[in-house]
Amino acid sequence: MAEQPSGGLRASRDPSGRRSLLRAGLGVGAALAGGRAVPAYADEASPPGDPEWSQSLGPGIGDRVYGHPSQFEADVIRRNVPWLTANAESSISFTPLQYQHGIITPSGVFFERYHAGRPTVDPAQHRLMIHGLVDRPLLLTMADIQRFPSESRIHFIECPANGGMEWRAAQLNSLQYTHGMIGCAEWTGVKLSTVLQEAGIKTKASWVLAEGADGAHMARSIPLDKCLDDVLLVYAQNGEALRPEQGYPLRLVVPGWQGNVNIKWIRRLELGDAPWFTREETSKYTELMADGTARGFTWPIYAKSVITFPCPEMPAKGSGAYEIRGLAWSGLGRVAQVDVSLDGGMNWVHARLHEPVLSKALTKFTLEWRWDGRPAMLQSRAVDETGFVQPTLAELRRVRGTSAVYNNNSIQTWQVKPDGSVFNVQLA
Amino acid sequence: MAEQPSGGLRASRDPSGRRSLLRAGLGVGAALAGGRAVPAYADEASPPGDPEWSQSLGPGIGDRVYGHPSQFEADVIRRNVPWLTANAESSISFTPLQYQHGIITPSGVFFERYHAGRPTVDPAQHRLMIHGLVDRPLLLTMADIQRFPSESRIHFIECPANGGMEWRAAQLNSLQYTHGMIGCAEWTGVKLSTVLQEAGIKTKASWVLAEGADGAHMARSIPLDKCLDDVLLVYAQNGEALRPEQGYPLRLVVPGWQGNVNIKWIRRLELGDAPWFTREETSKYTELMADGTARGFTWPIYAKSVITFPCPEMPAKGSGAYEIRGLAWSGLGRVAQVDVSLDGGMNWVHARLHEPVLSKALTKFTLEWRWDGRPAMLQSRAVDETGFVQPTLAELRRVRGTSAVYNNNSIQTWQVKPDGSVFNVQLA
Repeated sequence: MAEQPSGGLRASRDPSGRRSLLRAGLGVGAALAGGRAVPAYADEASPPGDPEWSQSLGPGIGDRVYGHPSQFEADVIRRNVPWLTANAESSISFTPLQYQHGIITPSGVFFERYHAGRPTVDPAQHRLMIHGLVDRPLLLTMADIQRFPSESRIHFIECPANGGMEWRAAQLNSLQYTHGMIGCAEWTGVKLSTVLQEAGIKTKASWVLAEGADGAHMARSIPLDKCLDDVLLVYAQNGEALRPEQGYPLRLVVPGWQGNVNIKWIRRLELGDAPWFTREETSKYTELMADGTARGFTWPIYAKSVITFPCPEMPAKGSGAYEIRGLAWSGLGRVAQVDVSLDGGMNWVHARLHEPVLSKALTKFTLEWRWDGRPAMLQSRAVDETGFVQPTLAELRRVRGTSAVYNNNSIQTWQVKPDGSVFNVQLA
Repeated sequence: MAEQPSGGLRASRDPSGRRSLLRAGLGVGAALAGGRAVPAYADEASPPGDPEWSQSLGPGIGDRVYGHPSQFEADVIRRNVPWLTANAESSISFTPLQYQHGIITPSGVFFERYHAGRPTVDPAQHRLMIHGLVDRPLLLTMADIQRFPSESRIHFIECPANGGMEWRAAQLNSLQYTHGMIGCAEWTGVKLSTVLQEAGIKTKASWVLAEGADGAHMARSIPLDKCLDDVLLVYAQNGEALRPEQGYPLRLVVPGWQGNVNIKWIRRLELGDAPWFTREETSKYTELMADGTARGFTWPIYAKSVITFPCPEMPAKGSGAYEIRGLAWSGLGRVAQVDVSLDGGMNWVHARLHEPVLSKALTKFTLEWRWDGRPAMLQSRAVDETGFVQPTLAELRRVRGTSAVYNNNSIQTWQVKPDGSVFNVQLA
């Protein structure tokens, strides 16, 4: 790489820095020219130069009983990579993380993944069957399920293929495509333990098969211990019913475990004493190691983070005062610490974690940054409450080779060029 | 009232109650009939009786770059009361709280209120002016504002007219209409203190005028102390840009203070040494007391709660095991406790508060309830961390008379009849 990060780059942690954004002439804001007319009272007539929307009535109540974003936000959409999957029915779309503010992913742009398209399930006809090693097999309606004691929790869901295109080389110059197979929402449902106990768990049971009602009959084996720990049968996301592409009317949320285990449109739970070795845990969702063996049942998402501003889609605009922003997460619990490097990993500074810092949820981090306009290599590194430290891609490759696709939780590097543009690069 | 609550109603707090929903024959679930074919493996062909969506491909990626709810959720919409306001441009729509799961209100159904319709503001043209008792008057673009250090927080916003129709008598048999002028979201923006300090606050300044860019030029005076405490200049809601009806591209969020102070489409902040006594704090948003005087500047929302299930729109369906669900909030801080009464306020039981319990945010509470089918009078009563106890309507009327409209934070009573239907009643 021609441009090396400058040692002169330094994060501003001086509280007085906050008050000098303008005085330092750093491009934020403009002092008011004395010539502009300033209305003395709130109810004075609008100055002649006021925009149309300040001098007219807008549309009234009633035209949008269910709202949607502003016409000016048309770029905030899910996107897919056509060459990534064989067809549109077994494909994935990516969350536009470059536009995400805070830890909640809007349901409208929460990434989607399915193996046989998005089924349209009638909730009145949908049933959940619970059978196998139970005392009382059950067939539950949605009304039955919503009558159980409820739980609401904020958790991320990430596809283990997130970042999979990056294993061998940097593929796409995009935050949305390198990290957008993730979203975080408030999920509401019933503890799976409550429902399983209702059926009566036989002593011999140690595994649960979860199966979807979609045409792919997506199915995964989950250890009973996890099911009794924190798994939820979820019917609502961000306050309303699940969206169709997220499993309407019912899905599993398996906190912290890779997305495909969070079975959508769930119709069946079978209790057994061994895993089922379904298609989705043998030919799919296993990792080809350097020695040719496959690594399977790789459930948890390990500590991971990414800088969301600046990023390829959201470049810096001239030198000056900025806030580096990002998201961190861990499938093992809370994020304990995020460090940010401006020089490709040579020096690290603690970022600020924003409350609420919740277990197995996205956590927002920020770092004030005064950019001098010289090239920079931005990185973030998450550490979770178990002490797990997000690795470099080189470290991951040493352990897993270069044939893997899944579970790339490595540190992302964004190269910032003097013109403010940002590039997805991999350091040796 | 002909039907009196039964002393026999009692909340079930016995943990074993959880496991006996079915054994007690309480209507949750159905045991599987031996005759139904149970597939032995996940990838076995679908039984012939499977629904169409389990035997076909659904639509693929690409048709919904911005998603929306299922076609089966068409009833989950904002609604308005046509007779409540003079016209549709100065009106209000109500959040369907009867369908809200958890503490996040979906942006699509977050209540809306405006005085001159919903303006369509071009963010590229929008400016925020800061002037008056400041050292350096400022004119900020949206790009300027988004460059400041950011804050994300989950807060409710409630119109003080919420419940206003109930002052004299129970008006509408509906949770949506009695309590739906509220919503809770994750808001992202910049601390107002950061921006004001950038302008330089003159020593004499003690008040801030906030003014909207809509045709009504909605404006309120806010004490500087509050502005420097926790007020945010917000550009994002639930992870994405503000919705147009919520103030796109920029609004105030004044945590815990009544909705109209949370100026939307904000274009101007003027610092002064006295309140401005704008239209919206003199002829509007004041309370007519019994003695004919007006009570003004009634900013905070005091401790309040409501049971969201059962409610008029979501009746009970036969006796048996239920979970009473509700939401509680306080503009003064965290909810400390919620009690539920099944007998119109004679006896109270602590409800369970669900994490996260956040300051000036909706808090979910639940109580397991085994209903014996006899009439009940359900109430909830919130207590906040300052010790403020939600009052009865009779207590409120003693202090404020019956001419007031705003700030009805009284205890709601839902009468449950033997057929499970629920009615909005007021106890003497």
